[in-house]
Amino acid sequence: METQNYRIIKINREAASEEEDKIIVEYPLTLFINGVEFITLLCTPRSLKELVVGFLYSEGIISSKDDLEDIRINEASGRADVYTGNKDLYYYQGDRLNAKRTVTTACGRQKSIIYNVVDLLGTESDKIHSCVDYTADEILDLANRFNKKSELFITTGGVHSCALCDKKDFIIFEEDIGRHNALDKILGGALLRDIRLEDKMIITSGRISSEMIIKVVKSKIPVLVSRSAPTNVAVDMARKYNLRLMGFARGNRMNVYSGAPEQSLKPPVTQDGG
Amino acid sequence: METQNYRIIKINREAASEEEDKIIVEYPLTLFINGVEFITLLCTPRSLKELVVGFLYSEGIISSKDDLEDIRINEASGRADVYTGNKDLYYYQGDRLNAKRTVTTACGRQKSIIYNVVDLLGTESDKIHSCVDYTADEILDLANRFNKKSELFITTGGVHSCALCDKKDFIIFEEDIGRHNALDKILGGALLRDIRLEDKMIITSGRISSEMIIKVVKSKIPVLVSRSAPTNVAVDMARKYNLRLMGFARGNRMNVYSGAPEQSLKPPVTQDGG
Repeated sequence: METQNYRIIKINREAASEEEDKIIVEYPLTLFINGVEFITLLCTPRSLKELVVGFLYSEGIISSKDDLEDIRINEASGRADVYTGNKDLYYYQGDRLNAKRTVTTACGRQKSIIYNVVDLLGTESDKIHSCVDYTADEILDLANRFNKKSELFITTGGVHSCALCDKKDFIIFEEDIGRHNALDKILGGALLRDIRLEDKMIITSGRISSEMIIKVVKSKIPVLVSRSAPTNVAVDMARKYNLRLMGFARGNRMNVYSGAPEQSLKPPVTQDGG
Repeated sequence: METQNYRIIKINREAASEEEDKIIVEYPLTLFINGVEFITLLCTPRSLKELVVGFLYSEGIISSKDDLEDIRINEASGRADVYTGNKDLYYYQGDRLNAKRTVTTACGRQKSIIYNVVDLLGTESDKIHSCVDYTADEILDLANRFNKKSELFITTGGVHSCALCDKKDFIIFEEDIGRHNALDKILGGALLRDIRLEDKMIITSGRISSEMIIKVVKSKIPVLVSRSAPTNVAVDMARKYNLRLMGFARGNRMNVYSGAPEQSLKPPVTQDGG
């Protein structure tokens, strides 16, 4: 399954309604090379054999189909086993791979985040308990201003932007070629300036996958708003940790995936206590 | 400098013109923790101290400002030196980090790509020598059809798409939450089906940074077209390796960053040999 159905709340300036929405699945595929665990790819569960072969080729672990002895993919367990003819090749690559790593425009630091996920799950203390509430109008007002604010995006089209806000205005605004970098610049700036985060909101231009949720929950920020889409894992984690998660905040509309604003436009779902 | 000026060719269905364009800079910042090289972040060179602190916090290497003894950033050399109070903390984290890595929605495999870059640079044999030519009309026709083709994007808004094409049609079309995964699925599928790549074109919905160029050049694919923006490093590499690189291919317009189509709409630049 590449998508999953969720009940979400669609809000515009006039009304709010609960609707069924299809959300993209974030699927972890753990790759074992010659029996040795190598990497976990978070991907869309389609063409997994092609993904594994293409990844091995891009990584320089194989240079042709002939380097492959066997590929077995167990979609149910999320495990891919690859056997290469040249065992040394892998170990040689393994050494190279472990010698240095580079994080580029979006992430790469997930080798640690996978641990953070494990750490986070089931840790009650990580649940967000915030008394602050943002109304739908406050969120939409800030999101609209946010979407017009990125000069680097306007001039180059090549960056993501991220902002830390209170109920009325922007406190920090950052832009970066990587959506993770932009968020880290916000968190670093808040840390350096001793800004209290428990009552703030993050707005990002980027898509929301699990590692974005982890950063925000870890920082105890109660509201996360994106111009783009979340993954199913992001929605599940947001609901589990009481993070208010909104997506597709554009113009005068947004989707609420977790924690509808109490002071919102009196959506039917809150009226009938749903 | 967060942007760099390039002379590029802007093409639409009627005409082509050479223009000055601002392109986003892809800046490598190598982070040393307590003197030990830790990671290279590819980022936008702004708020670098905030990025480093936020990254260390997100990674769980520091939990507050007090864990930092000193931060020195040398912007000219692209080096950041961080000194933490608790030396063990880093080594503990280092072990965790090296125990496992996860590639998520956009990348993370760059720890090896950094080597590929080094391997590629200066290797004349990696230059693309293709006799095939795609006209501006052929590229724009395929790009327009490409932009309407992604069902998962239409239903969820949460994926990138990538296609392998010849002059007339799509040969492979893939979608994934990660733009790198989508391209790897294409390359893997081509490898498994023994598809010749020397005369094909790749179209992607994603932004083009150095590691996307590396995958395409390595596969000897002569034409790369994106709906989005490239970085300056991507443009420099495309020009160096004779890769034809087009961006912002939307509607009936596109930007040509490297290798204008010979059979294009007779742009003034080709008329006066510029």
